[in-house]
Amino acid sequence: MDEMYIDFYNKLLGTYDDQFSVKGISGERVAERLSILAHIGLTEDNGSRRPGFSVLEREAKDRVIEWMYEAGLTVSEDGAGNVFGRLEGKSSDKAVIMSGSHLDTVPNGGHFDGTIGVLSALEVAQAWKETGYTPEKSYEVAIFTDEEGSRFNGGLTGSEAMVGDTDMEKTLLRKDYDDRLFEEVIQDVGLSVRGYGEAGRDLDEIETFVEVHIEQGKKLEKAGLPCGIVTGIAGPYWLKVTFEGLAGHAGNTPMDDRKDALVAAGEFIQKISTLPRKINDTAVATVGNIQVKPNGTNVIPGEVILFVDIRDIQFDSRTELVEKIIATGKKIQKRTGVNFIHQNVHDVAPVPIAEEYQEKLAQSMNRLGIKPSYLSSGAGHDAMIIGRHIPSAMLFVKSKEGISHNPKEWSDLSDCVQTIHVLKDYIERLQVV
Amino acid sequence: MDEMYIDFYNKLLGTYDDQFSVKGISGERVAERLSILAHIGLTEDNGSRRPGFSVLEREAKDRVIEWMYEAGLTVSEDGAGNVFGRLEGKSSDKAVIMSGSHLDTVPNGGHFDGTIGVLSALEVAQAWKETGYTPEKSYEVAIFTDEEGSRFNGGLTGSEAMVGDTDMEKTLLRKDYDDRLFEEVIQDVGLSVRGYGEAGRDLDEIETFVEVHIEQGKKLEKAGLPCGIVTGIAGPYWLKVTFEGLAGHAGNTPMDDRKDALVAAGEFIQKISTLPRKINDTAVATVGNIQVKPNGTNVIPGEVILFVDIRDIQFDSRTELVEKIIATGKKIQKRTGVNFIHQNVHDVAPVPIAEEYQEKLAQSMNRLGIKPSYLSSGAGHDAMIIGRHIPSAMLFVKSKEGISHNPKEWSDLSDCVQTIHVLKDYIERLQVV
Repeated sequence: MDEMYIDFYNKLLGTYDDQFSVKGISGERVAERLSILAHIGLTEDNGSRRPGFSVLEREAKDRVIEWMYEAGLTVSEDGAGNVFGRLEGKSSDKAVIMSGSHLDTVPNGGHFDGTIGVLSALEVAQAWKETGYTPEKSYEVAIFTDEEGSRFNGGLTGSEAMVGDTDMEKTLLRKDYDDRLFEEVIQDVGLSVRGYGEAGRDLDEIETFVEVHIEQGKKLEKAGLPCGIVTGIAGPYWLKVTFEGLAGHAGNTPMDDRKDALVAAGEFIQKISTLPRKINDTAVATVGNIQVKPNGTNVIPGEVILFVDIRDIQFDSRTELVEKIIATGKKIQKRTGVNFIHQNVHDVAPVPIAEEYQEKLAQSMNRLGIKPSYLSSGAGHDAMIIGRHIPSAMLFVKSKEGISHNPKEWSDLSDCVQTIHVLKDYIERLQVV
Repeated sequence: MDEMYIDFYNKLLGTYDDQFSVKGISGERVAERLSILAHIGLTEDNGSRRPGFSVLEREAKDRVIEWMYEAGLTVSEDGAGNVFGRLEGKSSDKAVIMSGSHLDTVPNGGHFDGTIGVLSALEVAQAWKETGYTPEKSYEVAIFTDEEGSRFNGGLTGSEAMVGDTDMEKTLLRKDYDDRLFEEVIQDVGLSVRGYGEAGRDLDEIETFVEVHIEQGKKLEKAGLPCGIVTGIAGPYWLKVTFEGLAGHAGNTPMDDRKDALVAAGEFIQKISTLPRKINDTAVATVGNIQVKPNGTNVIPGEVILFVDIRDIQFDSRTELVEKIIATGKKIQKRTGVNFIHQNVHDVAPVPIAEEYQEKLAQSMNRLGIKPSYLSSGAGHDAMIIGRHIPSAMLFVKSKEGISHNPKEWSDLSDCVQTIHVLKDYIERLQVV
């Protein structure tokens, strides 16, 4: 057996019910492959660190490529480093069914986000090989590059390149966490700007895309279901907020004579955290990034810049939330005299999933005795980018305590494997259309 | 007249009442010298930037040394770069009266903080020369090095060296904002570690120290008084606070399933800003420095580290404030589930000013027709360090809107010159004791 993260492997199998290892699908194989990938970029906290365009992401891709060959797939790679493992269908003139996800992670992430989507798509092909099934339509297992975007503070880079949505001019100006330009970074993993520009694919070749991903929420756990059907992907709206107060000496400025930008920002952060639940169960608002100036222990903060990440799957309720957040800032300005300035810096429209595909997923779940449940995705995924051009669907796997982007991320192997059965059934039913 | 900051000079004289240019003291001279010093390290915002141990601080010292010679003083310098301009008294066996302050500034500071204390002490000697007065006791005008501490995130370096309080071991490990070691930095201005270690002075030689400084608060402005008597210097107590929550994806984690460390910290910052006024007029609490982890726009903050700077001139009320702040954090922990961890990392005891010296300053003010008023210092000053060893007093000059450590820092020349008259009278009365 290859070098792998043993404790993780044992934990996966510890709760696994092997009644799910049927129809060519193997829980043991999925556990082994998850454990091997978990070992690539393993952090001190037993998390994963595989930044986009890193040699660690490359190493993970290379391992999966070996397994693609093992499953009888033909492997190709585009100029953005996206990997496609193809199984030729009986009618090779028909458009392809594609499934997959990504292998890069956030700086100290978990072992399921992205990975389980790639391994699920691969396990379907492997199961077909084991059972001697050949699909009518060609099938491709996809690994998209740099989905998380922790390298360039961007993300969804690979799937954007495949659908031809890359803004090359902006991309070439991007600098990574080491202040290195895009062109230099991609050379580390054998890519070139020229090849990158040619990564766009003829989208008529692809009939539909489906992505398996961990839920990153607790709804399936609360409902006691192994997987669920995604109804739409919430687009993020980023609001850049500046509080302009007055810097001063922390010792000699009486409390009543202050315009403390951080006190105003603190109230803002606390207050807006109570707003989403007043609007919608699916609405969220987060302040994840804050910069304080001058950030000296004995200086009253003169300026605070922060970003509010606002999401909902419906455009109207998201807009309502944005408005309430802005109104909160204005009220604080009025009372404290600290200026509140706001600016929209990023706005991705929510992507709905066509009901036709949700319905097909529900039929597969019914056939497998899993109650269909529906939930939205708050995070962006490769399926969001691809869904702008090609009908796309998503299946979420139950995620323990909804923890993600964290070494504690966990999905039970039984849930993962049941999801793979749904995926396999869904793809097989797409052959007859 | 030297090249100088003309607008500043004109603004100083614009509101000056020259009835105060009497008894050898000249408002025009003080304005000219303030303006010449303001020109050294002038920033884009018309502020001052003269870091401790910089060539700019050195240049400012050299200009004042020229004026010391002009006032008939003998100039010496110790191994820490502290400059002493000495006027021999009639009874040269008696201990010295010393007055002064510093010439370094924060990165984008004003033109009065420190400077006005040095020029006030110097103007007393200059006035004596003009009027042919020789004091009974020798008099020294002092310039202390690196009071602000913006270079090494420390401060009060020069006065500590003079009184022998320097911790040489720690000092040699200090690194400046360019990551350069102390030894290397001080060589830039001709100092050596060996000389630095020998800077300590025989403190029996000094009878008392008095420092003029801008108020950095609005009390004198509100009372309409040119200057006031400092009753004590508030020592800072720094509390390092960590909020430990749970990082997660900003999109897919519902609001009710979060342990957002920054939401908890925001509430804490806002709430503790309301506590000092419940305890004492002189009490203050400030969060100036905050670090958020991982600080990604789309990641729920898992950890926030911040520093609370807590001050009061009385030990007991300061302790009460610290306790209330800790209780606030504990309450937030209980309600939100975000861990609150606190640790004291810096604790300077408040330094009271002896009533005897406050009384003498009040007598001088009465003689000059200025109503004595009393106020505390929230900030540390060279007088705080020296006051641990030698009886020390402080006079505050009215400061516009209480703004300091900021290019907008302003004191009217009439107020500065009236303060110099108080200082001169006070020092002259100390001769007869």
